[in-house]
Amino acid sequence: MANEKDKRHILSMLVDNQPGVLSRVAGFFSSRGFNIDSLCVSETHDPLISRITLVAMGDMAVLEQIKKQLNKLINVIKVLDFTDVDYVERETALVKLRAKPEHRAEILRMTDIFRSRVVDVGSDFYTVEITGDEGKINAFLKLVKHMGIKEIARTGLVALGREKK
Amino acid sequence: MANEKDKRHILSMLVDNQPGVLSRVAGFFSSRGFNIDSLCVSETHDPLISRITLVAMGDMAVLEQIKKQLNKLINVIKVLDFTDVDYVERETALVKLRAKPEHRAEILRMTDIFRSRVVDVGSDFYTVEITGDEGKINAFLKLVKHMGIKEIARTGLVALGREKK
Repeated sequence: MANEKDKRHILSMLVDNQPGVLSRVAGFFSSRGFNIDSLCVSETHDPLISRITLVAMGDMAVLEQIKKQLNKLINVIKVLDFTDVDYVERETALVKLRAKPEHRAEILRMTDIFRSRVVDVGSDFYTVEITGDEGKINAFLKLVKHMGIKEIARTGLVALGREKK
Repeated sequence: MANEKDKRHILSMLVDNQPGVLSRVAGFFSSRGFNIDSLCVSETHDPLISRITLVAMGDMAVLEQIKKQLNKLINVIKVLDFTDVDYVERETALVKLRAKPEHRAEILRMTDIFRSRVVDVGSDFYTVEITGDEGKINAFLKLVKHMGIKEIARTGLVALGREKK
């Protein structure tokens, strides 16, 4: 059985779009030894407000403490925890793959199956864009790994709650 | 003519996957009043190394200073500036749109044109996943705004250099 400590948490925060807020939020986690697996921050449709989506593994009790402290910060408007909520998650990765002539058909087959796209082609490498949940992207990476991955840029997860049916 | 100060910069950094690194990197920018427009951090194919992709607007001279200081940090392995480089950029957004009956056909038409996808459907809202460069996502948001945007979660940009042709 998975330990409480091993649990993956997704937090989504609405914060003031101001210098310093991100550094403080990230600091709350690191000062408790909570490593952040991925984090995205970007504007919302209100340019004064940014959304931080954060994925971290760790102890539930410590996370509850961090959440309480985040809620006390004046620049933090709202903290949402997706741990027990039905949500949609998405992530995008750019993956630069070694494209040996004997592997090119296989790369195209894979991008087709995963509904991804080749977005740059050179003589030695293909760059693929892939979007999905974390599992889909990890599965793709596992399948193409043997061809040689030169570089990866992953956005990290964003999530929104599903509408109650 | 756009001022030097108005310039958009994309930085990509390889850093040690350790607590505290993100907070320090973000702190370098905020302590100079450099607001970060978007930032993503996630693992690379080496679990010990994370990639931070960061978009910020500001003065070139100040950015050069920040880059020098980042390069001195022991946990920063490499700093790449895409300002004068040919690159591919991608971003994903989840957009929860008000789906009044008279707007539903229009939403599906839009998602079709923008090669995006409806990923959640409720009685009042549709959630759309869209991937592209910043311009594409902004164009989509502009076109659907009048229907009513309830929530947005954007990942922020990731980028990889194009292969020299």
